[in-house]
Amino acid sequence: MAETRRIFTFLLRFVAFCTTLSAAIIMASSREKTTVFALSVEAKYSDTPAFKYFVIVNAIVSIYGFLILFLPSKSQLWRLVVALDAVFTMLLTSSISAALAIAYVGKEGNPNAGWLPICDQVRKYCNQVKGALIVGFISLILYILLFLYSVHRALNPLLLEKS
Amino acid sequence: MAETRRIFTFLLRFVAFCTTLSAAIIMASSREKTTVFALSVEAKYSDTPAFKYFVIVNAIVSIYGFLILFLPSKSQLWRLVVALDAVFTMLLTSSISAALAIAYVGKEGNPNAGWLPICDQVRKYCNQVKGALIVGFISLILYILLFLYSVHRALNPLLLEKS
Repeated sequence: MAETRRIFTFLLRFVAFCTTLSAAIIMASSREKTTVFALSVEAKYSDTPAFKYFVIVNAIVSIYGFLILFLPSKSQLWRLVVALDAVFTMLLTSSISAALAIAYVGKEGNPNAGWLPICDQVRKYCNQVKGALIVGFISLILYILLFLYSVHRALNPLLLEKS
Repeated sequence: MAETRRIFTFLLRFVAFCTTLSAAIIMASSREKTTVFALSVEAKYSDTPAFKYFVIVNAIVSIYGFLILFLPSKSQLWRLVVALDAVFTMLLTSSISAALAIAYVGKEGNPNAGWLPICDQVRKYCNQVKGALIVGFISLILYILLFLYSVHRALNPLLLEKS
């Protein structure tokens, strides 16, 4: 039973690693050349600080996710993983929220601030950003599950105890 | 010792409640009338979905923070508070990140997308949004501290055990 659970969380962590890495790569490779009023413009992720933040956070969480795959199951460091999972889940939440807020303005614009939507001009770029956000969202859900499982595993003995 | 700690966390939770409530009120009351090209424009928080989200999340967390002040210290529900603190800290992280991303565009603009900064036109509005974000940030730090303390208190007996 413990072995099955160990394999299951290993797989979950592996998928979470793959999704954060994919999200970073998809966002980082999003660029499109277009012509607006006879001017050649290139839209790329590094134009927008929120998208840069998204790439950096997903890259950092990928490295964490990769390293943790090799942590022996008996290691004392697993106690620390509850806190680390919480920190990295929060970083993912923050990066996805910021990127989503900007992507929404890119798609819908903000008439009150006079910001026009740009997705009609750079449709391919927008779709790629959307893809990165969806993959990022999946990785966030996986990390929330992993965090809840870490908490559950850490708290469970307490729940069985009389207090 | 336990009594001092109880009073300390109560005070921390009270301050956290006050800051989330203030953040919601400051953001919700941010509005400014201005004249752009002989047109009267009113800037208000509800123009921007990210700011509406910020107000809603801070209001919800205020209600949670208020209710939890009255939870008896012996209650079994305190075990649930670790998970609730985590959820609400994530919601706060998410709302502040989204609002910050939009506020940044409001202040600096995004030349590549053709979005102009608006803070020169609505300086008072911008300052009020900035104030709400600063107070929101303080409340986020307080909730992170409270969450870490909840985790610490829940995990500590485990750390003392031999495994």
